[in-house]
Amino acid sequence: NIQQFLSAYSDGAMDEVTGAQLIAESLKAQKVDYMFGIVGVPVIEVAMAAQAAGIKFVGMRNEQAVEACRLYSKFSARPSSLEAIPTVIEKAVRTSIYGRPGACYVDIAGDMVNAKVDRMSCCPPPPVSVADHEAVTEAVSVLKAAKSPLVIVGKGAAYGRAEAALREFVEMSGLPFLPTPMGKGVLPDDHPNCVAAARSRALLQADVVLLLGARLNWILHFGLPPRFNPNVKVIQVDLCAEEMGNNVKPAVSLLGDVNAIVNQLLKCVQKDGWRYPSNTEWWSALKEKIVSNAKASKALALEVRVPMNYYMVFHHISQLLPQDCIIVSEGANTMDIGRTMLNNYLPRHRLDAGTFGTMGVGLGFAIAAAALEKSANSGRRVVCVEGDSAFGFSGMEVETMCRYQLPVVIIVVNNNGIYSGMDPKTWKEMSQMGDLTAIAPPVSLLPEARYDLIMTAFGGQGYLVRTVQELRDALQRSLSDWDRPSLLNVLIDPSSDRKQQEFPWLTRSNL
Amino acid sequence: NIQQFLSAYSDGAMDEVTGAQLIAESLKAQKVDYMFGIVGVPVIEVAMAAQAAGIKFVGMRNEQAVEACRLYSKFSARPSSLEAIPTVIEKAVRTSIYGRPGACYVDIAGDMVNAKVDRMSCCPPPPVSVADHEAVTEAVSVLKAAKSPLVIVGKGAAYGRAEAALREFVEMSGLPFLPTPMGKGVLPDDHPNCVAAARSRALLQADVVLLLGARLNWILHFGLPPRFNPNVKVIQVDLCAEEMGNNVKPAVSLLGDVNAIVNQLLKCVQKDGWRYPSNTEWWSALKEKIVSNAKASKALALEVRVPMNYYMVFHHISQLLPQDCIIVSEGANTMDIGRTMLNNYLPRHRLDAGTFGTMGVGLGFAIAAAALEKSANSGRRVVCVEGDSAFGFSGMEVETMCRYQLPVVIIVVNNNGIYSGMDPKTWKEMSQMGDLTAIAPPVSLLPEARYDLIMTAFGGQGYLVRTVQELRDALQRSLSDWDRPSLLNVLIDPSSDRKQQEFPWLTRSNL
Amino acid sequence: NIQQFLSAYSDGAMDEVTGAQLIAESLKAQKVDYMFGIVGVPVIEVAMAAQAAGIKFVGMRNEQAVEACRLYSKFSARPSSLEAIPTVIEKAVRTSIYGRPGACYVDIAGDMVNAKVDRMSCCPPPPVSVADHEAVTEAVSVLKAAKSPLVIVGKGAAYGRAEAALREFVEMSGLPFLPTPMGKGVLPDDHPNCVAAARSRALLQADVVLLLGARLNWILHFGLPPRFNPNVKVIQVDLCAEEMGNNVKPAVSLLGDVNAIVNQLLKCVQKDGWRYPSNTEWWSALKEKIVSNAKASKALALEVRVPMNYYMVFHHISQLLPQDCIIVSEGANTMDIGRTMLNNYLPRHRLDAGTFGTMGVGLGFAIAAAALEKSANSGRRVVCVEGDSAFGFSGMEVETMCRYQLPVVIIVVNNNGIYSGMDPKTWKEMSQMGDLTAIAPPVSLLPEARYDLIMTAFGGQGYLVRTVQELRDALQRSLSDWDRPSLLNVLIDPSSDRKQQEFPWLTRSNL
Amino acid sequence: NIQQFLSAYSDGAMDEVTGAQLIAESLKAQKVDYMFGIVGVPVIEVAMAAQAAGIKFVGMRNEQAVEACRLYSKFSARPSSLEAIPTVIEKAVRTSIYGRPGACYVDIAGDMVNAKVDRMSCCPPPPVSVADHEAVTEAVSVLKAAKSPLVIVGKGAAYGRAEAALREFVEMSGLPFLPTPMGKGVLPDDHPNCVAAARSRALLQADVVLLLGARLNWILHFGLPPRFNPNVKVIQVDLCAEEMGNNVKPAVSLLGDVNAIVNQLLKCVQKDGWRYPSNTEWWSALKEKIVSNAKASKALALEVRVPMNYYMVFHHISQLLPQDCIIVSEGANTMDIGRTMLNNYLPRHRLDAGTFGTMGVGLGFAIAAAALEKSANSGRRVVCVEGDSAFGFSGMEVETMCRYQLPVVIIVVNNNGIYSGMDPKTWKEMSQMGDLTAIAPPVSLLPEARYDLIMTAFGGQGYLVRTVQELRDALQRSLSDWDRPSLLNVLIDPSSDRKQQEFPWLTRSNL
Repeated sequence: NIQQFLSAYSDGAMDEVTGAQLIAESLKAQKVDYMFGIVGVPVIEVAMAAQAAGIKFVGMRNEQAVEACRLYSKFSARPSSLEAIPTVIEKAVRTSIYGRPGACYVDIAGDMVNAKVDRMSCCPPPPVSVADHEAVTEAVSVLKAAKSPLVIVGKGAAYGRAEAALREFVEMSGLPFLPTPMGKGVLPDDHPNCVAAARSRALLQADVVLLLGARLNWILHFGLPPRFNPNVKVIQVDLCAEEMGNNVKPAVSLLGDVNAIVNQLLKCVQKDGWRYPSNTEWWSALKEKIVSNAKASKALALEVRVPMNYYMVFHHISQLLPQDCIIVSEGANTMDIGRTMLNNYLPRHRLDAGTFGTMGVGLGFAIAAAALEKSANSGRRVVCVEGDSAFGFSGMEVETMCRYQLPVVIIVVNNNGIYSGMDPKTWKEMSQMGDLTAIAPPVSLLPEARYDLIMTAFGGQGYLVRTVQELRDALQRSLSDWDRPSLLNVLIDPSSDRKQQEFPWLTRSNL
Repeated sequence: NIQQFLSAYSDGAMDEVTGAQLIAESLKAQKVDYMFGIVGVPVIEVAMAAQAAGIKFVGMRNEQAVEACRLYSKFSARPSSLEAIPTVIEKAVRTSIYGRPGACYVDIAGDMVNAKVDRMSCCPPPPVSVADHEAVTEAVSVLKAAKSPLVIVGKGAAYGRAEAALREFVEMSGLPFLPTPMGKGVLPDDHPNCVAAARSRALLQADVVLLLGARLNWILHFGLPPRFNPNVKVIQVDLCAEEMGNNVKPAVSLLGDVNAIVNQLLKCVQKDGWRYPSNTEWWSALKEKIVSNAKASKALALEVRVPMNYYMVFHHISQLLPQDCIIVSEGANTMDIGRTMLNNYLPRHRLDAGTFGTMGVGLGFAIAAAALEKSANSGRRVVCVEGDSAFGFSGMEVETMCRYQLPVVIIVVNNNGIYSGMDPKTWKEMSQMGDLTAIAPPVSLLPEARYDLIMTAFGGQGYLVRTVQELRDALQRSLSDWDRPSLLNVLIDPSSDRKQQEFPWLTRSNL
Repeated sequence: NIQQFLSAYSDGAMDEVTGAQLIAESLKAQKVDYMFGIVGVPVIEVAMAAQAAGIKFVGMRNEQAVEACRLYSKFSARPSSLEAIPTVIEKAVRTSIYGRPGACYVDIAGDMVNAKVDRMSCCPPPPVSVADHEAVTEAVSVLKAAKSPLVIVGKGAAYGRAEAALREFVEMSGLPFLPTPMGKGVLPDDHPNCVAAARSRALLQADVVLLLGARLNWILHFGLPPRFNPNVKVIQVDLCAEEMGNNVKPAVSLLGDVNAIVNQLLKCVQKDGWRYPSNTEWWSALKEKIVSNAKASKALALEVRVPMNYYMVFHHISQLLPQDCIIVSEGANTMDIGRTMLNNYLPRHRLDAGTFGTMGVGLGFAIAAAALEKSANSGRRVVCVEGDSAFGFSGMEVETMCRYQLPVVIIVVNNNGIYSGMDPKTWKEMSQMGDLTAIAPPVSLLPEARYDLIMTAFGGQGYLVRTVQELRDALQRSLSDWDRPSLLNVLIDPSSDRKQQEFPWLTRSNL
Repeated sequence: NIQQFLSAYSDGAMDEVTGAQLIAESLKAQKVDYMFGIVGVPVIEVAMAAQAAGIKFVGMRNEQAVEACRLYSKFSARPSSLEAIPTVIEKAVRTSIYGRPGACYVDIAGDMVNAKVDRMSCCPPPPVSVADHEAVTEAVSVLKAAKSPLVIVGKGAAYGRAEAALREFVEMSGLPFLPTPMGKGVLPDDHPNCVAAARSRALLQADVVLLLGARLNWILHFGLPPRFNPNVKVIQVDLCAEEMGNNVKPAVSLLGDVNAIVNQLLKCVQKDGWRYPSNTEWWSALKEKIVSNAKASKALALEVRVPMNYYMVFHHISQLLPQDCIIVSEGANTMDIGRTMLNNYLPRHRLDAGTFGTMGVGLGFAIAAAALEKSANSGRRVVCVEGDSAFGFSGMEVETMCRYQLPVVIIVVNNNGIYSGMDPKTWKEMSQMGDLTAIAPPVSLLPEARYDLIMTAFGGQGYLVRTVQELRDALQRSLSDWDRPSLLNVLIDPSSDRKQQEFPWLTRSNL
């Protein structure tokens, strides 16, 4: 059973029950099970009709950039009559899941009259295409000739549900792999072939990259020097022809469904039993780097100090989280370090502010995930790791979690600021020097803000956390509470920073 | 000294200090004193340069619809080189204050190089035009011939600073007047000629309307029946020619600066000493309605009950607020009833979600106003009256108030929902019946949410208020605290509603 | 009787006669007398309904940039129902004539059903505002203090119908004036105070400029050095507040109706009888320049040669054109030189590709003007002076002229190219050298193309003109033929160029 | 050698030769061989640089809807610096040919400075994907089970160069096929399996449709009743996932390269030797209809009358055109009837105003095709069949043909109007009745306009044609003249119409 989300916005008033019912029924016919929205006058009727039609409704507290949404959507339409609503909604749902997935926008005018309309049946699952056989053969030749090959697993592999085929391919071929932030979990982060802990070296020294459903955008440094070998050969696997060749001219382009193509590659290596040896210089170099990086992180993670640093916090979180939990993450340092230190073990179990770096989407992601898991009675936890600044964008959504009794665990890693903050004493001294709007650093937030009380305010469980022991206790208690959400306000050293990187993972500011 | 606001957004990274300095200096040259923004990578440098240039910077927690902003702005530009920045910023500031005021948008690319540039001096104050003399004479004739004349005071009269001339004109002519939400306070709401308390009757029965800087949009029911007399003659005063005749064909159009035109009208009536008699049937009808409406409100306001109703809350607030306070308001019922029950005594002392009905702007307005008043050491309070749903859109901005020690008083009128909510007991029963996303009414929020604790979380003063006495105590204490913000979480009856209206003031949903 | 133009576009099919009738009647109610359009399926019904409603319809052969039209229009709307059509059309017509005039765009969907609708009466004439009295007084002081004052007459003075007041003001004050291309004819070009023939010097040395309804855009070199005195004081007269201060900070801004403001200025100088002396150094300098420029032009104009040069052509045209003719002009050199050498004697008798430099609009302008003059039986001629490249953009519209028997006189000044061309012999030699797409200069057109035969093709009168005598004969015959259009294909020297300018009048390429 | 077209527009002036050179070289590097443009100031330098870089340049006389172009393009960008130009142009060319082909738009600012830049190598040919094997098998099963199958050949089959595989598949399987207007010629129109002459019946009665690269848009009546069998099963073959399921839910979706998929289908039928029998009721019904339609057309085509009707004209044209000529067509009736009566024998030899019904593109298509054929010295003719109204949109481009000596044959099928016109005598009578703008039918053009003289005007060969003999003579002479273009102005009966259709081929007006 496929779960789909679609937000239906409408402007103007919707007077006729029939209009609202039609929207609700059209969404239901397309197997939409959940609707998320902000209740205002025109939305109430649609929300009520949705519930009547068996669609669950989650009333949110705010939305980011509604108009922007329309601008960036893959398809947008405004039905010119009631009769057109089912067709337009079918097309919107279909377009959102066919080809490269993306949001669609349907704008429904408020003044439509009654009408008799035809029903639309649900659109079939997306069609699948596979790569040209010759191109696959050529790709395998390029891989076989590589001295230092690398598989990069992108979110296209996750959306394409390539996990089973990919695991077999990686294990059969013995190739090292690296996930992108949204590709984490397609294969488990603790897989022996995962070289995420040697990411910079892997990118820099690979001579052949098998790029699976990942774009060579800023997250992957555009595939260019100084982060990549200038002579790297890229085997690009993508379902979108227009993506081929962006920023780097590929050695081979494999166009089609990522899962199907991984199966094609797998069959080739199965046929002749080729395997990249485990005793190469490349594997030695990667493993050495993994060990030395692990040592450095460990040293930071095992420091004993109050206030804590980032690595201590993430180390203990990672020890306590269940392997099947869904991790949502946003913030600057918080998201970056979390990508390294919080392992994913299952595909599509991580939601990340990702490509656009939009802040404020994390709590919404967590609510959606928690509503689905609760409804499915899956026993899976949703854990939301947020920077303090990021949390501020939509912190009021904790009320939504409390209202619907969604047991999300929110961990706010609080350094009193954006990138870095000030300690309470220094802040107090500064505030006595004059008008804070004239002198306060723009990156500072209020020191030691009690974000935990916001959870308390709505009946959830809030924890103020200063020490490792408090962190472990609070997290264990939160994970055992299935009735309501929790928030851990984890105070860290405002001058805590990431350890020195050869090349940072994701630093939009460096572009 | 003119205070101006301008938000400068930029996309992409701003590497060069020189670029940021140039923006800051160009804004300062145009007498911009405050900048508001969300700090992210590209904005930090601009914010710091702004502070260095003597512009105060208020770092916010969230922003509504950035892209939308550009779509609705009066002027938008993207300078093609650093050299163009001062010119473009001068034009943006000038355009925002000349003609009909409006936002302007300047988009500055991140990759600009160093350059030597010319400075721009500040633009002069807006030019003033006056109405054609003959049209003024005709307008006065139409007014003199009226049996039931009415002056409507819009926000154009406030922006145009017409208060002094208008008071003299109203008192000299003896005409009844009615303010629009944003026109409240141009003349005091308790002025003897104010007929706001008989609003529906005044609009319906007036035979001549002198419309001062107000648009005949949905807030004024488009000037059409059934809310207006179909034969009403409108004398339209506006500085925008394109506004003339929208929805209703005016009997006379007076084009120009509203203050200048009120002075022209004043001179006419001063010349011949004309005055609309105070003993007309029209005045009798209006006064009778004012008295009967006051009686109805009073009855509700003086009820003795827990939970309170809307009228009790607003009655006591209105008694305690200082006359020179700045009232910010948003929400559905809360804003509507507040428009009736909270008097304004001074022009430009009210900020209202107003024409667009956009939710989530109230706390931002309050922060801007409080920063200015604090800096000016004016001794004026900023009071923000919010519905509970409206508060949720940007409730995290209370951290901003606390961070900058801005003593805003926030009053959340909390009915557990949007339009109306549920009591805690019923909610609990319902939650035991199944999945709340399937059955909870879309308009319900969590009952008795402790919004006051959000203020407490950031070091401000929170009050949970259930009774009249608690309300009065908490408000008095809040008003006497000049060091930090306060939040009164005023629990009212979730089924409390507005008293029956002949025609509601502002009911977008009815359109 | 006001003549208005409005182009109504529609997309999709218009099935219902009622819909088309409604559009036609709504336009008629707004006193629209002419409709211009391209007939395609959806337009036919509207065109026929327009004729039935008494609106004349001119079917054109092509249109430039329809979508662009919407982007640049002052107001655009898409009525959501039939009922809304009269209101939207009233608003479109009103907006196009109120405030700064501009095009409006109404997009009417094809699938509207029948409905009963209200009629809208015609909108009243635009409201008038006048400048603030103090600002007028200050402007007069600035003028009186000027050593080398200059009045610049823009198209705002033409649209505002300021001709009578302006003539009195100029003659009373004795000030020199200069028209912009679209301001030509507000006062006659041969008025003794006109200093157009000393344009560059006038702009450069003026210390005070009274700018009447003209924008300081690229046509006026932005009001900046090196074309303007850096210390020039500008008295800016405009009805658009947002125009004030663009590019140059004005010494005085007079906001309001241009005609009304010229009247205000006139009253001031009438009161005290002030007059700028005729024996100043400024007048001497201007007159000396006028004489020397006239001499240079005359020398070129009186050359005896075949092929002719530009100045010979324009000299003889200017001698033969009736003073009340309407001159339409487009092209690069052709429009520039025509602005200097073809006098206008009456306001609003010149149509110029003007501000945007869009090519291809000239024949459309000529058709519209000729249809109006023919219908009014005014006895006025429409003469269209075109460069050969410009003519190519919409040359097929001569069929429209022939079809409706509109006696336009088209003069194509043909130099075989864009800016300049090649002679037939050189062209032939070149064409034998190889593939012309590889070697032909991009600016060359076919030498000696017989544009006159295009007129012949549709039944008008075509003339091939090589000599002065042929030019004079053909033009005289054309002007005496009132039954059909004529086209003079005037072959000039392909290397003919403009005489050397100190600063060219209009040279977008130099920006 | 791939021929690609790209139009580069620029706004503002391009002062630096280096900028123009860079654009030219970047285009050349992407194997662009031809550039088409309108010369104005900013374009001249680019055009000259293009010629210097070995790109041929064709200077046109007009362009349709430049701004619109940007709105509808697949990718649009504005390089922010000179350095970015090669990358952006590579991406534009690549995007235009990868995935579904489409126009791209590059907007280059005029004020860029000098810079050193990297070169980009040419993008590789588009990647190819094939359909999922199971889906192919299922498609073949559906085909085998069909009683009345039909192959529809769309322009996707032409772009995908599927002609060889498709011929083998059709001949092997014995299936009837039908081309869309832009799919004509992929297989020859006179192929025994072609059922174009029974188009309406084929569409209506087919129970299985194999849709090859064609959209179910208005040209194919959306695949819906009453033009299609409501129970038709569609096997949809397309390279664009988002196209699948538009308007009709497919029985099978085959996603990928059309040529590759036809090969997959071919292999399946080759394997088991399946063949649709030739003695079915379906073939009988189709053949019977083909015969009866041919008879009806023939009757009209062989009439002996002056003025001629449409069918006489197209019959004789079709007899004389060489099989390898390139046919360009636009107009309403002209294009419709030409689709039926003018056979195509080779793929990609027909250019049709097609999907959007935009008028005025035909002559531009013809110029582009003729320039390529001439340069390739292919010996192929370009023949452009135009309605008289359509010709008017860009008739001045005949000068371009003459200038570059491109031997296009233009046939204007002239019925004195749009859809239908008036004869000269009636027109003359009507013109004596009053103002033609008030009474002339909007669809009428000037009777017997001499479009042939427009060709004569520029040195080409014009023919006025009234009879069959004149038509045959003129066309034969035109086809034998390889030095210059010709235009046949074929006067037909203004009331000539298409023969009655069961359902018209292409009738946007009926939607």
